[in-house]
Amino acid sequence: MSAVAIVGAGLIGRAFAITFARAGRTVRLWDPDPAAAPGAAGFIATVADDLAANDLLGGRTVAEVLAAIHPVTTIEAALDGAEWVQECGPERIEPKRETFAALDRIAAPDTILASSTSGLLPSAFSEGLPGRARCIVAHPINPPYLVPAVELVPAPWTDPDVMRRAEAFLREVGQVPLVMTREIDGFIMNRLQGALLEEAFRLVAEGYAGPEDIDRGIADGLALRWSFIGPFETIDLNAPGGVADYVARYNDLYAGIFAQSQRRADWTGAVLDTVTAQRRTVTPQDGLAERQIWRDRRLMALRAHKKLADDTFGR
Amino acid sequence: MSAVAIVGAGLIGRAFAITFARAGRTVRLWDPDPAAAPGAAGFIATVADDLAANDLLGGRTVAEVLAAIHPVTTIEAALDGAEWVQECGPERIEPKRETFAALDRIAAPDTILASSTSGLLPSAFSEGLPGRARCIVAHPINPPYLVPAVELVPAPWTDPDVMRRAEAFLREVGQVPLVMTREIDGFIMNRLQGALLEEAFRLVAEGYAGPEDIDRGIADGLALRWSFIGPFETIDLNAPGGVADYVARYNDLYAGIFAQSQRRADWTGAVLDTVTAQRRTVTPQDGLAERQIWRDRRLMALRAHKKLADDTFGR
Repeated sequence: MSAVAIVGAGLIGRAFAITFARAGRTVRLWDPDPAAAPGAAGFIATVADDLAANDLLGGRTVAEVLAAIHPVTTIEAALDGAEWVQECGPERIEPKRETFAALDRIAAPDTILASSTSGLLPSAFSEGLPGRARCIVAHPINPPYLVPAVELVPAPWTDPDVMRRAEAFLREVGQVPLVMTREIDGFIMNRLQGALLEEAFRLVAEGYAGPEDIDRGIADGLALRWSFIGPFETIDLNAPGGVADYVARYNDLYAGIFAQSQRRADWTGAVLDTVTAQRRTVTPQDGLAERQIWRDRRLMALRAHKKLADDTFGR
Repeated sequence: MSAVAIVGAGLIGRAFAITFARAGRTVRLWDPDPAAAPGAAGFIATVADDLAANDLLGGRTVAEVLAAIHPVTTIEAALDGAEWVQECGPERIEPKRETFAALDRIAAPDTILASSTSGLLPSAFSEGLPGRARCIVAHPINPPYLVPAVELVPAPWTDPDVMRRAEAFLREVGQVPLVMTREIDGFIMNRLQGALLEEAFRLVAEGYAGPEDIDRGIADGLALRWSFIGPFETIDLNAPGGVADYVARYNDLYAGIFAQSQRRADWTGAVLDTVTAQRRTVTPQDGLAERQIWRDRRLMALRAHKKLADDTFGR
């Protein structure tokens, strides 16, 4: 199998390096800052150790994974023979356009050029490029070695065959591609997250419940089923006759709720003070970094559980 | 500790019987259909065995749990000495009003009267009762022995002390109470679920992605973190400076998405055919019951994992 290039060795780039190397790919890691790619090695080694301890290295050893990741000093060296480029640069349109122009100029014609962006549409950074048909968004939830979903988003001019190859590539490296048919702000996941957060902020802003009640209602309630079957299968299994039966029973309830939800809470207003006060009571500002480490440990244990449950019960 | 009465021995009533008995309570189970309460025994025994196998019986034996659940033949016997009544009858306003009138007439003055209803507001069935101040909704996600969140919803006239006692009671029996300050259609969890489903149906209806992509985006994406920290803590840990930093970075993105989301997809229209077709391809109509059993096994394994992770890493 051919190599993968990662352009941008920050948090997302490093995480993708581990993800691809764990799947047996040769990874070339380049960053415009010459210190960044070599500097990623310590982080990568620590994560690889943790993944090995949870049997999440795909049967490979830590040494094998580390040996597959090569910091390189030029973009040309990164792209040489690459089947896939994962661009992980800054989230601003001008540098993104410049990077994609360079990638399109240097990469072999059949290399797929994928951006990790969460906020920019693929049409915005690929417009006008000779190779715009091979440019896409492949947006992960960080870190991709623990969260497998990756959104594949085409521009209007993306070649359908590029999308098919992209989907196959992501499956080969053990990720779960969500294949969009066309671009829209926020893609799939941030639109779903945004919808949930809108209601969460609204309930808190209007005083129905506190932020902790919302978090518990998801973490000790709805997200238990969602975390292995998703929202459509959840409702499909929540009425004796399946999803059509569910909609027949509950559409009126949800239509009524929707009618009450046509105003935005001001996330930057008083409700933010309420949420911040609750969060800082539980986790002080100077405890956030440590809590992020805790979150990743729990996420890793959850992934190990899901892998075992997939094997034991099936998906 | 005093006894708990369950009025209505259907799916939810049986599940609550196990939940309360596992916590060491004496449970009296009554149903207007004389066959229902005794008929629940087989189901309860099977579930207790499964819970024991996953160390989810709170340290009690199956025999202890079964011995704590008493089918009774009169509502008076059920309510005698009960600290808490969990009403699990039909989801229609007239029978609910009649049941609560009977409960209020028969129960000792300080007994809390809680309904499992998901669709009726507490004011609607407690209005006019002499003991309306002790009537609330305690809405679970089924089954409560696997999903700990329970919404506590007051009517405008509910005594604040009843809410405090209800919260304490639910914590004592190992559930996670979400305490609302006032009633609203859908309470917390179905409003959050509805918001997510609205966007999910809209994305499918408008052809951006298929139902399976939505389910994977949640099950292999967003819900992994949500399943142990919830949406507010998720964003609090997703920006270096916490939730205020996150809102500063992403409010514009979400405001834009919100502006694009002010129309409802017709859940009963063509999109339902799309969702149904996808669901029935994966799980045929006659496979739904078996898939529900599979879901509950996975849910049980997930709960066992969460218990272990809580002990190992903390919450």
